Parts: sequence; structure tokens; C-alpha cells
Amino acid sequence: MKLERYCLSKIYTLFQYTLRFKMPETEIDLGVTADMHVHLRDGAMMELVTPTVREGGFSIAYIMPNLVPPITTIDRVVEYKKDLQRLSPKTTFLMSFYLSKALSPELIDEAAKIGAIQGVKCYPAGVTTNSDAGVDPNDFTPFYPIFEALDRNNLVLNLHGEKPPSKNEDIHVLNAESKFLPALEKLHRDFPNLRIILEHCTSKDAIDTIEKINANLRDDEPVKVGATITAHHLSLTIDNWAGNPVNFCKPVAKLPHDMRALVEAATSGKRYFFFGSDSAPHPLSAKARHVGVCAGVYTQSHALSYLADVFEKVERLDNLKKFASDNGKSFYGIKDDEVVNSDKCVLVKKPTKVPEIFGQGELTVVPFRAGEEFAWGVEWR
Amino acid sequence: MKLERYCLSKIYTLFQYTLRFKMPETEIDLGVTADMHVHLRDGAMMELVTPTVREGGFSIAYIMPNLVPPITTIDRVVEYKKDLQRLSPKTTFLMSFYLSKALSPELIDEAAKIGAIQGVKCYPAGVTTNSDAGVDPNDFTPFYPIFEALDRNNLVLNLHGEKPPSKNEDIHVLNAESKFLPALEKLHRDFPNLRIILEHCTSKDAIDTIEKINANLRDDEPVKVGATITAHHLSLTIDNWAGNPVNFCKPVAKLPHDMRALVEAATSGKRYFFFGSDSAPHPLSAKARHVGVCAGVYTQSHALSYLADVFEKVERLDNLKKFASDNGKSFYGIKDDEVVNSDKCVLVKKPTKVPEIFGQGELTVVPFRAGEEFAWGVEWR
Repeated sequence: MKLERYCLSKIYTLFQYTLRFKMPETEIDLGVTADMHVHLRDGAMMELVTPTVREGGFSIAYIMPNLVPPITTIDRVVEYKKDLQRLSPKTTFLMSFYLSKALSPELIDEAAKIGAIQGVKCYPAGVTTNSDAGVDPNDFTPFYPIFEALDRNNLVLNLHGEKPPSKNEDIHVLNAESKFLPALEKLHRDFPNLRIILEHCTSKDAIDTIEKINANLRDDEPVKVGATITAHHLSLTIDNWAGNPVNFCKPVAKLPHDMRALVEAATSGKRYFFFGSDSAPHPLSAKARHVGVCAGVYTQSHALSYLADVFEKVERLDNLKKFASDNGKSFYGIKDDEVVNSDKCVLVKKPTKVPEIFGQGELTVVPFRAGEEFAWGVEWR
Repeated sequence: MKLERYCLSKIYTLFQYTLRFKMPETEIDLGVTADMHVHLRDGAMMELVTPTVREGGFSIAYIMPNLVPPITTIDRVVEYKKDLQRLSPKTTFLMSFYLSKALSPELIDEAAKIGAIQGVKCYPAGVTTNSDAGVDPNDFTPFYPIFEALDRNNLVLNLHGEKPPSKNEDIHVLNAESKFLPALEKLHRDFPNLRIILEHCTSKDAIDTIEKINANLRDDEPVKVGATITAHHLSLTIDNWAGNPVNFCKPVAKLPHDMRALVEAATSGKRYFFFGSDSAPHPLSAKARHVGVCAGVYTQSHALSYLADVFEKVERLDNLKKFASDNGKSFYGIKDDEVVNSDKCVLVKKPTKVPEIFGQGELTVVPFRAGEEFAWGVEWR
């Protein structure tokens, strides 16, 4: 009898161990992944970085239009997409126009009809790289006819959500996003059916606003206002870019409580938060400067390794597929059978080192967390 | 009668004009000026920048001891002063020790006896250039015997007032100074007679704390706790160093309301606020980097031009002498007849251009607001 009870207790203990120490996953199938905010530039930089969308673990890429000059015509967006497709035939490129006076409602109608674009990107003038042709976010009304055209064609409005700096109004890099949020809420009130994305959000204020807008969202209702979150903002704060221009980007990484709010949102699995890397390569010569450092962090080539690291640390790897795959596609209404290649991205536990540099000569780019080794890499199957 | 009244009214108008349009000053005698926080480095950099103390308009310079290794012996401080004196015979150098375990109360007594130092500088470990040998500001008690020695010898304690960064405690470059202020208040409570300077203060919180400590200061009572304010923090905010490493320094320039509080304090004429440039030259190669930019702004060569610009803009030029001359000397107890050269510094209205660079080759230094022209320059008489 004693032996029996002893054996039973041992079996029970073993059972408990099994429950507690579930074998960690070594592979996670993320399906057809989507990076909904990508800068691929043009010319030689485009040649260098375009293939790295797939190398970094992403099948679909939503491409930003802030070339010089910005993309505002069907011809150019079609040609640009062709160039990108040639460089990375298995990547599905979703294209966008740059919001400016060069656009017209008729142009939006036409572009939508032939499927040339999925959305229009709005840059407040002067807040980041190649944003000089942007708009005044204090008054969006001159662009309301464009927003109406987006609305009726079921296209997306992508917002760079920052007010331009103003000494008189006390607007600076740290509060520029928070100060923009009322403008986002007004746009949503004025266009309740328009799908809007607050791109690369960086602050607890922004997360709170997106949560507030979606507070009464029913499960069967499509998301109208979502937010992309980058990989780098999940592990950077102001201390990381103070003195390290390689980590300087716009919007700037903010305070620790902001980073925690971003990690919480990204790893929550909620439908209105999804991945947009905002990977923005600059040559080293534009970073290693004493004045006028270009804003942007290059994360494309190891995007999923960075993300997996963050999700694993907060024990939310099970939500990574939602963030990096399902939520973005669902927001944009992209079906898996519409992509140019339906390979699945599998996150694999294997040491993956980020090189010190990427490219060479004039085109040397220093990637995010250069030289660090991560636990997860990617395979395509 | 009518004519009489007309004439009287004209005379009255002219009188009013005279009152309103006082002829602007074109010269201001600032007397024997004092910059109470100066980095002159050693070696070739020392040779380059030491003469610029006087060129920038300052007669007295309080010299920081954060060389590599830091200055902690009488022999070295005497030798260092000799080197500086040789390079700039008309400058009065006030010297300091670097607070570390290498100091002893007996050493302080001895150094005070021969007049080798005027104070001891305390660097929290790891917060700025060459601060690795610094102390833990969470607990100053191991250094209380040193502070007692300073107190009995009537020497000054110079504090770099920042807590080291800590992710767990949410301490970052933006609040590191504010978080330090309770430690300053405790030191003052524990050593009510010790003269303490909160160096290069950068935040409204710091200004408010200094005001609070001095709230009941009688006119005939010497200041115990003062603060130095730099030239560059009077015109920089976070937006100026975000993307411009040349303006990156520690403590970092903060938000617009902080800058306004600093300008108000510096130009107030109050005895407990005085000038310390914290001019900290770095070769361009240590500034134009993508990682590990050295913290420090070089202002020495045009220090008074920068200051005059700020004071003139807020119409407080009449208080510049207090800030740049009287208050610092009064705090340190320096009499005009104790200086090595009693030339007076005269601020003169003359276009004064800051060069694009200073020095050459490996020793190229980019000065603050390089290339800009200022309305005021200096002459010695």
C-alpha cells in the first residue's frame, strides 16, 4: 500500500513536470507573412535591399512612395513595382501613392480600378526622410476629396502620425506623435468607413488612442483604424539613439514606458496591431555625420529574428503569427491565394547572426543590432 | 495759447521717444570674467583649446579633472596647472580633484593648505566622457569623510547631477538629472555649510530645486548651493541634437520648457546662478560616428558671443555681468586682485563669426553653431 502511494505520487510529480516544462517549440509556421511598411528606395540601394524582404522572413511588402520625386502617377508606380518584382520575384509588392497636391480623386479612381495601388501615404511636411512634399497636418481638409476617393475605392490611408516641430507650440520629437493623435481621431470621425493606419507608432499615447478607437469593435466587424509597429521600436528607447545615430529614426524611439506599451500591443494578438518594419536603409555616410544624420533604421534582412526575440522574451511567441502575418493581411483584405508566391515562412530555432555591415563601398548599410546573434532564423517551405 | 499747448505736446512726445528709444549699448564692461566649468583636456587638444578661454572672453577658468587617468594627486594637479598656465599666461586657472577612492581627507587637507585645488568634482560612474572612475550617486556616504574635509577647508563640491541610466528604474537621459535632485538636497541637509554646485543644470526641475534651496537666502548670507548653466543649453532642445551629434552632450539638452527655465534663471541676475560653459572639445572623428558619439559641445572660443546673443534676445544684457563675472567669483570667493591678470573683458558690438572648424587634421573640432555670425564679440582692456 505504501509503495503504491509512493508510485502514484511519483507519477503525479512527473505529470506535473510534463505540464510545466512543455518542450519549447523549435519551429513555428507563420504562413504567408506580411511587412506592411517597407522602404526599398530606388537605384543601387533598391537593388541591394529588395531581396532582403524575403531573406528577413516576409512574403508580402507594402511599399512606401517617398522616392525623390515622390510617387504620384500610375506610370511610375507600375514601373517601380516592375523593378521591385524583377529584383525579388517571390515577393508580393503592395504599392502606394504619396499624398500631395499632385493627386486627384480621378487618379485615385483610375489607380484603384487597375489595382495599381493599395493605399496612399500621408507625410506631414518636413518630419522625416524625403517628406518635403508632404502635407500640413493641422488641416487635412484640402485632401478630403482624395480621402473620399480612397473610401469609395476601399483603399487605405497610411498616416505618418507626427506634427511638424514647432518651438511656439512646444512640439518636439518626443511629443510630435502624441500631438498628432487628435487629428487621427478627427479623420476617423469624418471618414468612419475609411481604413486608416497610424504607421510606426511609438508612444503609449498612440497605443491608448488606437485601443480607444477600437474599444467597441465587434469580433465580426472589420478593423477601420489600425496601427503598425516596427521591430526596432520594440527594443529601443531614447538612450539607445542618444549618441548612436544608427538607431536614430522618425518617429524617434521614446521612453521606457512607451516601449513597454508597444511590446504589450504588438504581442497582444489584437487585430488592429500588425507589423510594419519601417525598415529604412541609409548609406553609412548618411549616418556617421556630426550634423544632419538621416532618420531610419535598417531591419529588413533580419526582421523576423528581431521580432521573435521580443515575443520570446515576453513568452508570446504564440501571437507572433497574428502580428507578422494574419492581422496585416486581414486589415488590407489580402488573401493567401492572391500572392505571387505562396511559400510559407517558418521561424526556426537556429543561431542567426546579424552582420556588422551590409553592402559595400558607398552602399554600406549598418543593420539594426549589427553583430548580435539571435536565437531564431527563417526558412521558406 | 494754442501754440504754447502745441509746443508743450511736442516736447512731451519727444521726451517720451527719448525714454522709449534709449540708445542701445555698444560696449559693456564685464570686468574680470569667470567660466566656472571648463574642459581643457591634455596633450595636443589642450594645446589647441587652452588659449581659447581668453579668446572666448573669460579671464578665470575652473578646470575639470576628468583626464585619463583622472586627476587625484597634488603632483598631477600642480603639473597640469603649470601646463595650462604656460599655454595661456593671462588666464587664472582654478583646479579640482576627481572624486574617487583615490582621494583621502588628509590629501584634501594638504591640497587645500597649499592652494592646489578649489574643489572636488563628483562624476556618477558612466554618465559622460571619462566618468568610468566615478562614484555611485545612490549612496554618497562612503565619501562623507571627503566632504567633511572639503567643508573644513572651505572648498567646493562640484556635482555632475545625473543618475546613471537604469531600465529597471526608468532612468534615462531625459530624467536622469531630475532623479538626481533628491540626492543633492540630502547632501545639502547633511552638509549645510558645504558649498555645492549643481553643474551644467539642464532642466526646469533642477532650476526649481536650486530656487527652493535658496528660497530663504538673506542678501548678506553667502550662497551655499549654486548652479552653473552652460551657453549651449540656453539655445538647444532635444530637437537640436536628435540627428545632430555635434550638439549631443551630457546632460542632454531637454524640452522647450526646460530651456526657457534655464534662460530665465541665467538672465535673472540671481547670485546662485552663474556661468560654467562645460565647453568639451572632441575631435570631429569622435562626433561624426554612427555609434558611440562622444558627449560634449565645444563653446570656449565664442562663449561670450553665444551668451550675449541669449541675454540680448530677452533684453537682459544688464544682467550678463552678474552671470558671467560677479556671481561665480563671489561663490568661489575669488577677489579681482587674486587673478594672474586683471584685464577687463569688454563685450563689444561687432559682427563675430564662428568658424566652420577649429584646428585641423586629427584635431579638427567643430564649434557650437559653426558658421553663424553673432552681434557681439570681446576685447580685453
